[in-house]
Amino acid sequence: MNIKMIRFKKIGNDVGHLTPVEGELDIPFSIRRVYYITCVPNGVTRGFHSHRSLEQVLICLSGSVKVRVQTPFEEQVIQLGDSAEGLYIGHMVWREMFDFSEGTVLMVLASEHYSESDYIRDYKIYEKEAVAYFDDKGGE
Amino acid sequence: MNIKMIRFKKIGNDVGHLTPVEGELDIPFSIRRVYYITCVPNGVTRGFHSHRSLEQVLICLSGSVKVRVQTPFEEQVIQLGDSAEGLYIGHMVWREMFDFSEGTVLMVLASEHYSESDYIRDYKIYEKEAVAYFDDKGGE
Repeated sequence: MNIKMIRFKKIGNDVGHLTPVEGELDIPFSIRRVYYITCVPNGVTRGFHSHRSLEQVLICLSGSVKVRVQTPFEEQVIQLGDSAEGLYIGHMVWREMFDFSEGTVLMVLASEHYSESDYIRDYKIYEKEAVAYFDDKGGE
Repeated sequence: MNIKMIRFKKIGNDVGHLTPVEGELDIPFSIRRVYYITCVPNGVTRGFHSHRSLEQVLICLSGSVKVRVQTPFEEQVIQLGDSAEGLYIGHMVWREMFDFSEGTVLMVLASEHYSESDYIRDYKIYEKEAVAYFDDKGGE
């Protein structure tokens, strides 16, 4: 699957922790957009989409959250709760975020500005495109 | 002073809040680096530096923090505690961050990769450079 965990260097001392993430150096793309998700009520699941060409890195800055990443061929659930690690999600991966603990701050770094046409929000359409995409990639 | 508050569009509904910040669109520069400060103990002040050419936007994603911004000619203290607003800090502004509430997450978007030579960490050196800088700019 087009995902991987990335470990960042947290600089921690007696005045707190600072974690830098440099575009193109610590993550495999330039950062064109940042967004952050807060105040998610208990029991809510978000996401339910894939991107055709956007790449993202999800970092849980406070609290914890689970991310289900899936393709037509495999599925994983990854718990994020350490601000020194990021979940890279590449092309054509369906994602759902759930089990947000109270006060969770989920930050996402994205490789492009917002473009609605890059989203696939219908799982049936996603499944069809993804089968063709991963077939072309030799079942990556 | 080379600072301003920037208001972001928070998209809030019954599944939580999402706040996007697009480089060059919502803020006046491309985002080359992101860093976040967490776990700052009670009573600690951080910062104590200026940048010659780096621009930054500080956004408090959780909790609250005060930021003292100053030049040789003026000083302001700004409280950050709303994730839909950012404090832009331009060139040659001395900054100190203090009164971090417990659990505060302070995110900073920066216009360049890390470069130690862009930092001025000695207030006396800062003061001298800043007087010359603001003189050249006609007392901006």
